[in-house]
Amino acid sequence: MSDSVIWANNLLSRAAEERLVRAVGAKRLILGEVVSDWPEPEVDHRARDADIIFGQPHPTDIIESRGIKWAHISTSGIDRYDNEGVRAAIRHRDAIMTNSSDVYYDAVAQHVVAFILADCRQLLFAIEMQRAGRDAAQMEIRRRSRMINELNVLIVGYGRIGRRLAELIKPFGANVMSLRRAATEDDLARAIAQADLPSALAAADHVVNILPDNPSTANFFDSDRFRQMKRGARYYSVGRGITTDHGALADVLNSGWVSAAYLDVTDPEPLPTGHPLRAVSSCFVTPHCASGHHNEDLRLVEHFLENLRRFESGATMLNRII
Amino acid sequence: MSDSVIWANNLLSRAAEERLVRAVGAKRLILGEVVSDWPEPEVDHRARDADIIFGQPHPTDIIESRGIKWAHISTSGIDRYDNEGVRAAIRHRDAIMTNSSDVYYDAVAQHVVAFILADCRQLLFAIEMQRAGRDAAQMEIRRRSRMINELNVLIVGYGRIGRRLAELIKPFGANVMSLRRAATEDDLARAIAQADLPSALAAADHVVNILPDNPSTANFFDSDRFRQMKRGARYYSVGRGITTDHGALADVLNSGWVSAAYLDVTDPEPLPTGHPLRAVSSCFVTPHCASGHHNEDLRLVEHFLENLRRFESGATMLNRII
Repeated sequence: MSDSVIWANNLLSRAAEERLVRAVGAKRLILGEVVSDWPEPEVDHRARDADIIFGQPHPTDIIESRGIKWAHISTSGIDRYDNEGVRAAIRHRDAIMTNSSDVYYDAVAQHVVAFILADCRQLLFAIEMQRAGRDAAQMEIRRRSRMINELNVLIVGYGRIGRRLAELIKPFGANVMSLRRAATEDDLARAIAQADLPSALAAADHVVNILPDNPSTANFFDSDRFRQMKRGARYYSVGRGITTDHGALADVLNSGWVSAAYLDVTDPEPLPTGHPLRAVSSCFVTPHCASGHHNEDLRLVEHFLENLRRFESGATMLNRII
Repeated sequence: MSDSVIWANNLLSRAAEERLVRAVGAKRLILGEVVSDWPEPEVDHRARDADIIFGQPHPTDIIESRGIKWAHISTSGIDRYDNEGVRAAIRHRDAIMTNSSDVYYDAVAQHVVAFILADCRQLLFAIEMQRAGRDAAQMEIRRRSRMINELNVLIVGYGRIGRRLAELIKPFGANVMSLRRAATEDDLARAIAQADLPSALAAADHVVNILPDNPSTANFFDSDRFRQMKRGARYYSVGRGITTDHGALADVLNSGWVSAAYLDVTDPEPLPTGHPLRAVSSCFVTPHCASGHHNEDLRLVEHFLENLRRFESGATMLNRII
């Protein structure tokens, strides 16, 4: 391998960090300090001398870099780097930016199927009844249960996670619709034009929000859009918390207009004590763990190493953004 | 339609009963009394004069029937009729017996996927943490989470439910193995010979018991078989409660040998107060609702009516057992 200097600041398991050090060699690796779980990145001037940045650098360190050639972001979402300053810095230096969506998209899609099936099979309600020792709920649970077959699932924000989700739930017999930027068709999901979103919302039994965080998506699901949904529909959000108006969601859940919400992302995370959504029993929140899996750190490093191999041999990079 | 007399004793919703009466005509329909939810059948001498029996007749009424031509059992499991007396009575009269597995098999398969995904995504744990206001569990949940990809799933009792389950989880990337009566192969699941069951149990991350209730399956999963499982594996049971030794299951859950159990069936149902399994926090029980869905009564009637059409025109019957 070449002797390009790599700065990395991932919060890695010991095994994953050892794998990284062993693969690239300690000599050319600068490990940024990690101060806590799930940290906000800190400025680290040493990153500005690196050829390659892997992890969650402070955006300023990319902008002020002396010779960056490639930045590999260790998440799927790139909100922090999705701005003109960073883009210009990368382009100006003829550098590359990649993310780690290969590592995470499948887990998020599986998490959504888990949510949808838990709802269809009334799993959380049934186990709550079990824990409370209430056995008489059998007929009630059977009557509340659904099969996914013939239910309409609308995926709003149809990227890799959305496509994988469609692939996983099609065999159940769901009708899948999708709102996507480009009105291209695929075999998995019927594409909906932006103008037809109200009628798609009115037809959907399950509405899955996988929108990224950008200026056009803030509070995309607001009071109006929730009211366009079919009475009794279910809402899922696994992209970015800021795309949901949480106050409006609490209202439509409390009124029963939306039957249940399953959120892996909120704004802020976690929701503060006393937040209206916390008191809503039909709101189920997992703590931004949809993309998580036990060996994610090791997979993150392997994915970086594969891209490093490609970078050094001039091959096509995986998950290239810029 | 012909004027054969139909006796029926299903516990049907009003809409489903109206559909049945409208379709076959009140004149030739004898409705057996239903005394409670999920009843044990009672002897009803009127059933013995019917040509067609639909529902859950008392087995004696089949054996003592004066001219039964067809019995359509309204469940998937036929434990109650799976004996020589009933079989001989049907055969002796050149009659037909069918069940309702078309109505239920898919829901049960989807319920199992819901169980498996809830486990992989640590959904029940995450929601329990949410309800308790413990937000700090994020990294723990991520580390405990799994994707189904590359996990070994062993299906013990590979009939229609098992095949549908395999069909639904293959797209996730699971390796599916199956123990079945006939050692036939299909594309969905690698067939395991009975002699190879111990090594299959040792390889499986998820063991799904869908065995029917018959003399060879009582306590099939006993202490020995649980000990043959890989440490940390998960156990699912959705066929018949009697196929699991519940005391042995409580032991292996308490010792941590089996990480978690998800049961839709127990013996008895529900488990009595004070039963050892009730105190095990890694044991999740749904109340025999895996096959349930909100329109099951209507589908049950439609399925019967389709078979009635076939019966009266001499076409091949659906779900024929005898």
